[in-house]
Amino acid sequence: MKHYDCVVIGTGPAGQKAAIQAAKLGKRVAIVEKNEVLGGAQINTGTIPSKALREAVLHLTGDGRSQLFGQSRHLKKNITIADLVSFSQRVIQNEWEVLRNQFDRNSVDLLWGKARFVSPNEVLIEGTDGDSLVSADYFLLGVGTRPARPENVPFNGKTIYTSDEMLHLDHLPKTMIVVGGGVIGTEYACIMATLGVQVTLVEGRDKVLGFLDQEIADAFQYFMRQRGITLRLGERVSEISEVEIPNNQGCMLVEARLESGKIIHAGSLLYAVGRQGVCRHLGLEKVGIEFDDRERLKVNEHYQTNVGHVYAAGDVIGFPSLASTSMEQGRRAICHAFGCCDGDYNSALFPYGIYAVPEISMVGKTEEQLTAEGIPYESGIANYREIARGQLLGDALGMLKMLIHQDTHKLLGVHVIGTGATELIHIGQAVMALDGDAEFFVNNVFNFPTLAECYKVAAYNGLNKLNNVYSGSCQPVTLS
Amino acid sequence: MKHYDCVVIGTGPAGQKAAIQAAKLGKRVAIVEKNEVLGGAQINTGTIPSKALREAVLHLTGDGRSQLFGQSRHLKKNITIADLVSFSQRVIQNEWEVLRNQFDRNSVDLLWGKARFVSPNEVLIEGTDGDSLVSADYFLLGVGTRPARPENVPFNGKTIYTSDEMLHLDHLPKTMIVVGGGVIGTEYACIMATLGVQVTLVEGRDKVLGFLDQEIADAFQYFMRQRGITLRLGERVSEISEVEIPNNQGCMLVEARLESGKIIHAGSLLYAVGRQGVCRHLGLEKVGIEFDDRERLKVNEHYQTNVGHVYAAGDVIGFPSLASTSMEQGRRAICHAFGCCDGDYNSALFPYGIYAVPEISMVGKTEEQLTAEGIPYESGIANYREIARGQLLGDALGMLKMLIHQDTHKLLGVHVIGTGATELIHIGQAVMALDGDAEFFVNNVFNFPTLAECYKVAAYNGLNKLNNVYSGSCQPVTLS
Repeated sequence: MKHYDCVVIGTGPAGQKAAIQAAKLGKRVAIVEKNEVLGGAQINTGTIPSKALREAVLHLTGDGRSQLFGQSRHLKKNITIADLVSFSQRVIQNEWEVLRNQFDRNSVDLLWGKARFVSPNEVLIEGTDGDSLVSADYFLLGVGTRPARPENVPFNGKTIYTSDEMLHLDHLPKTMIVVGGGVIGTEYACIMATLGVQVTLVEGRDKVLGFLDQEIADAFQYFMRQRGITLRLGERVSEISEVEIPNNQGCMLVEARLESGKIIHAGSLLYAVGRQGVCRHLGLEKVGIEFDDRERLKVNEHYQTNVGHVYAAGDVIGFPSLASTSMEQGRRAICHAFGCCDGDYNSALFPYGIYAVPEISMVGKTEEQLTAEGIPYESGIANYREIARGQLLGDALGMLKMLIHQDTHKLLGVHVIGTGATELIHIGQAVMALDGDAEFFVNNVFNFPTLAECYKVAAYNGLNKLNNVYSGSCQPVTLS
Repeated sequence: MKHYDCVVIGTGPAGQKAAIQAAKLGKRVAIVEKNEVLGGAQINTGTIPSKALREAVLHLTGDGRSQLFGQSRHLKKNITIADLVSFSQRVIQNEWEVLRNQFDRNSVDLLWGKARFVSPNEVLIEGTDGDSLVSADYFLLGVGTRPARPENVPFNGKTIYTSDEMLHLDHLPKTMIVVGGGVIGTEYACIMATLGVQVTLVEGRDKVLGFLDQEIADAFQYFMRQRGITLRLGERVSEISEVEIPNNQGCMLVEARLESGKIIHAGSLLYAVGRQGVCRHLGLEKVGIEFDDRERLKVNEHYQTNVGHVYAAGDVIGFPSLASTSMEQGRRAICHAFGCCDGDYNSALFPYGIYAVPEISMVGKTEEQLTAEGIPYESGIANYREIARGQLLGDALGMLKMLIHQDTHKLLGVHVIGTGATELIHIGQAVMALDGDAEFFVNNVFNFPTLAECYKVAAYNGLNKLNNVYSGSCQPVTLS
């Protein structure tokens, strides 16, 4: 039986970075993958394919700029989701190769098969070529999640499906019900609506993406509705079924009955409420690790489960379930396991990126959080339409908001909705991490024309509000 | 005669920000514009229209992504530059309005007419409605430049022209000679080549954009050649003429004779060598201000001319002649005039943005500068093709390079070539300004997938080279 310092289960973002980090610390590491391909949901069914689909859709529909150039592009009539996603294969293959090279270069043993604990320090790996038993001092569980599939939803993979099956659809539905207003539900709702699909989104809470700053969420909901999406907020689906519509040539439709009594019909339904851990068959009972009813693991601030030598990271530990944060969780878990400093980076500065249409990103606190915590702030806002670059891009909707401490003028949060939001956020994030204040942006020179100029405009806007009139003073002043 | 604290001549970027800054300091300000529209070259003939043209071209040709999606778009056969630029009118009108509102809101007197000093503190403004005389304590000259038009070049505005006339061309030439490898020459050469025009670029020095880091310049020259541009570097044009080509149906071509003896023919020629100040008619002799043979003004570090109460900023003072820096120069000049602190921002951190295809941007020092100054550094490189976002964008050429001090690990410079370069640079700029080091990027979490991740990859790459092998250590380590 081979002994390792560390065995990592799952090759998604959390597992990848954990294994490489351990290897770089000079540890003997193995990483186990039960699927036939590396990378988990990030590469194969989630992040990459959905972003590839988004790119393809924005490209083919002209990125919202048809209006700008007075030229409209027509999609092929019979385009399928599978067509649109196909170009992601090249990206996916590239990612596989990059990963495989990383494991090889760092002498990480890659073990193919299903892992199952047989004792607290022993894992049995059931591969197609037979079983093997390995032992380790530490374990990292980065086993990910799969879409939840409640039993009362009659999934058929053709008209009623989860996000996994959606990527393989052989047609583009005309109408779609999306159940769930989280990241996955809103991203797909926006992409489908951009393709001209009539979308109805049903979300149990009173807003989509509950973690967003309210002003950004309001703007996003406005944009979704402008794009033709019907939002049913504060509504729950009580029953989903396939029905034959009378006088409709025997055509089947999906019917969703809401608790409020409304009945909605559509050609298809994407079920995107929650994701489900996959812990049941890991033999966790042999180690004494508990999981919740959605098979997710609970960890402490060091990413340890209730059993100290077993760590968990990524989707399996729940929110935010983003590839970027999962990577960092995996890396930190390993740093903790091997008693290694992991930098002094503040996890309050994890960014959130939502690849909806438009893109949304945030770092730091929301207005609601600051108010609840009694931290006095002022907001500074820049609308893309005030910025030459926004005009050139034809993005009349985008906005950047920074939240500024009333006394210290330090940045407390940055919220962006619009083109390039996920990239732009990192300027504000760096300034927050390095303890800069709003005046930094006033004194900084930005390339012209860029969206980055929004930071300057927003800083002026916020500082103006804070200082009212500066006339006669020698302090930085408004340029707008 | 009305007396002002400050009179600003020219409503381009330098003048705009100077006037607003003075107004915000509570000063009485007038700004003078001799053209019929506000904004100078930035809004009307330079930055905005050329960027609008670039956007339109990238959009219509698919932004280099046709390849990615296996779909090619064909341009209208008879498309003209004027067509392509037309959409910029909306942007331009918007900018006029924004400017006009800013002047109004800040009580800046806008005086239309040609300004001419009649004494050191008096300016005569010759307007269409008659003349007026105003006096002021301080003056800021933001009069800009126009394309140089040497007498031995037979400009005709149709086949031989400067960048100003180019925007109004009523046809798209098949072949083009671009004389001058500065910002204007290379930007237009790339845009035309993207439209399928066969371009030959002639530059007297041995590389284009002499201020770029050599590695970036090399990459850029490679990309230009890949796009079909012929580079004639270290070559000078001795004669330009229109000639009738025998057996060519009486068709006229432009002929450029190079000093090396080569003769080049093309359907059109863009002359983009240098820009010319417009100081001759400002009555500067009444104040005792000198200008050089290209009618440009010399200023000290406070933007003062040789006469203390007259400042100058923007294109008229020469390099870098970018809208972004001109704005800051104007603002700082006024801050100095009125004895006002202007922040402690370091002008070594001015960014440079070149809107070629691909985009290029830099901040801080080049490798060549650091070597000349004896500052020990290591470079860290990230290629877009290693980054999921680069793969999704289909940008296989882009790269980000950071220069890291060998001892302190502080950032000394960031150089980006590729999609979004002008935006991305601001992350590195913020880290440099706030005294962060390369480790910042290692510990930072970036949204996935973004181009911003290049910073992390480049930081790992550079730190790896600096530290060779980290095995067994507890310091930040490579993930790649």
